[in-house]
Amino acid sequence: MTQRIAVIAGDGIGTEVVPEGLRALNAAAKRFNIDLEYQHFEFGNCDYYLEHGQMLPDNWFDQLKDFDALFYGAVGWPEKVPDHISLWGSLLQFRRRFDQYINLRPCKLMPGIKSPLADRVPGDIDFYVVRENTEGEYSSIGGRMFEGTEREVVIQETVMTRTGIDRVLKYAFDLAQSRPRKKLTSATKSNGISITMPYWDERVKAMSASYPDVTVDQYHIDILAANFVLHPDWFDVVVGSNLFGDILSDLGPACTGTIGVAPSANINPEGTFPSLFEPVHGSAPDIAGKGIANPIGQIWSGALMLDHLGHQDAGQAIVDAIEAVLADASDSVLTPDFKGRGTTEDLGRAIAERI
Amino acid sequence: MTQRIAVIAGDGIGTEVVPEGLRALNAAAKRFNIDLEYQHFEFGNCDYYLEHGQMLPDNWFDQLKDFDALFYGAVGWPEKVPDHISLWGSLLQFRRRFDQYINLRPCKLMPGIKSPLADRVPGDIDFYVVRENTEGEYSSIGGRMFEGTEREVVIQETVMTRTGIDRVLKYAFDLAQSRPRKKLTSATKSNGISITMPYWDERVKAMSASYPDVTVDQYHIDILAANFVLHPDWFDVVVGSNLFGDILSDLGPACTGTIGVAPSANINPEGTFPSLFEPVHGSAPDIAGKGIANPIGQIWSGALMLDHLGHQDAGQAIVDAIEAVLADASDSVLTPDFKGRGTTEDLGRAIAERI
Ligand SMILES: CC(C)[C@H](C(=O)O)[C@@H](O)C(=O)O
Ligand SMILES: CC(C)[C@H](C(=O)O)[C@@H](O)C(=O)O
Repeated sequence: MTQRIAVIAGDGIGTEVVPEGLRALNAAAKRFNIDLEYQHFEFGNCDYYLEHGQMLPDNWFDQLKDFDALFYGAVGWPEKVPDHISLWGSLLQFRRRFDQYINLRPCKLMPGIKSPLADRVPGDIDFYVVRENTEGEYSSIGGRMFEGTEREVVIQETVMTRTGIDRVLKYAFDLAQSRPRKKLTSATKSNGISITMPYWDERVKAMSASYPDVTVDQYHIDILAANFVLHPDWFDVVVGSNLFGDILSDLGPACTGTIGVAPSANINPEGTFPSLFEPVHGSAPDIAGKGIANPIGQIWSGALMLDHLGHQDAGQAIVDAIEAVLADASDSVLTPDFKGRGTTEDLGRAIAERI
Repeated sequence: MTQRIAVIAGDGIGTEVVPEGLRALNAAAKRFNIDLEYQHFEFGNCDYYLEHGQMLPDNWFDQLKDFDALFYGAVGWPEKVPDHISLWGSLLQFRRRFDQYINLRPCKLMPGIKSPLADRVPGDIDFYVVRENTEGEYSSIGGRMFEGTEREVVIQETVMTRTGIDRVLKYAFDLAQSRPRKKLTSATKSNGISITMPYWDERVKAMSASYPDVTVDQYHIDILAANFVLHPDWFDVVVGSNLFGDILSDLGPACTGTIGVAPSANINPEGTFPSLFEPVHGSAPDIAGKGIANPIGQIWSGALMLDHLGHQDAGQAIVDAIEAVLADASDSVLTPDFKGRGTTEDLGRAIAERI
């Protein structure tokens, strides 16, 4: 059975790390006899916008909807197109229209990577952030009034639905239940944000009744962020709204020293639409074009994609190869973010060979 | 000239740390010949709510408005009163009705305190978070519809005004300009939150024209949180919305190991209404009543209050005393959060004696 992957490199270092992601995928596909077919798309980047006045062609939905998965680089180049236009015109459309309501992001302290936190070693930090990915603070309702005057005011509405909250909570509870520690931490800010956040807390409480074996914690986002730094070992599965999940899934990888390495899966669990796999890092215009970007976030995202497509063994082989290369790679292979002298391609090849 | 201070201890450890705050204030007042007069208020805590059905008496505004400052402990006890009710009924009312639109929070790595970050020493981390304190995400507009059904939806509106943004930015730019590095970092999330956040960016850009000597950076909140951990030395003055300032001003102190130590000033710069001084930490019901809470956040908040009241020398004397005690205090004086055996009062007395 052929599985069809739509590949969108995007902007900046996206175009540099995607080829390395594909190299690893090809190595794994070969070893595990998986039949992957790629189709590359030239839209979904800021140059496309400059030429066409939009990030995607009008028929993008039909062009992409029948793929088995989307493999995305990174998007955004604020000097060319304001971020809210480029992102709402691409990635955020995919997430919403393809109803990828789960954003899953592992935070794991890997061998060979130095944590910025004192005295933390591999095994100490190993949790998932499960982020609501279609509603909440990332809303398209609101506007501006009294423009250009002293009275100017902007309003943006956070919208949360029972459906939207319950389905992400269910995913997070199921994930927690499947793990040895069976612990779920919910991020809210109910003391300050007095309407939406207490509602989220209510839904957590309601759902926890169906998971008596899962231990549930709730923290306000401010002290939770602090505890990521102070007690990262406390966490197993952390669930939060679109915004809180976004913040925590950059902060978590920062604590494990893996901001350039962290992967993410934007999942439509029902499989009605394709899911999307992309690194957590952005397009990094400041280092784009130099061939020094760390490709591991993209490669690891490929591993998550293989998991999702039913090839857990192949996904695991990629993760194992990443860990093996990191554990003993020399400076000539590691990229500059790891204080090495290697290029994107050097590191990508080393991982592909290991697979 | 007598300066009149309204003292509200609040809940939990608030009632334990406030007396130590007053002890330090008294010591400084004596040494610098300052005439402070305290009046204690029994409202603004959850027991008051249980008795009266509201956190504050109807005439709280008139009772408090003519004081020179408010000295507040901490409020909230979720087992007694839901947080959004206790906080919106007290602290958040003060901030809004007394137009304390600046929330100023220093993040400083202190001698004698171990940072959870590897290889950071005093001097490496020394910045301020300036938080908008009256509008934004902490909004009272919104509601719930289709209650109790599958279609249930909650909406909460983030409201930002030009007035509200410009005045906090002006304060932050002025503060940055007064410091040697003259660097301002603005926290937004303009790629995801597409209406309010790009507006904030616009106002930063507009105001920066009047401060040609201040270097301005802008980060999305996700990567900014990550950079607090990875590069805390990058920051000098960080300005953000009500929510983003809240998160960053817990995360910053976490990075300096001072979450129980960090102070905050809720300032009405015009002096039309009293400003409010309180620790960053909360009421900590879990350790309340044990006499082991760290009083430094409260004591340092007193120092900020003295600064604000025009007694910079006295404020500095308190900060110096805190640093001196931390630098050489023995286990018998330090509280358990610093791995010592001292009580709240032991540490409070040690600091007061130093003053
Ligand atoms: C208690 C809560 C409402 C408050 C806030 O979020 O403002 C607190 O976290 C703070 O930072 O002062
Ligand atoms: C680029 C941006 C809109 C996006 C987000 O905030 O969702 C990114 O930060 C992410 O985490 O995937």
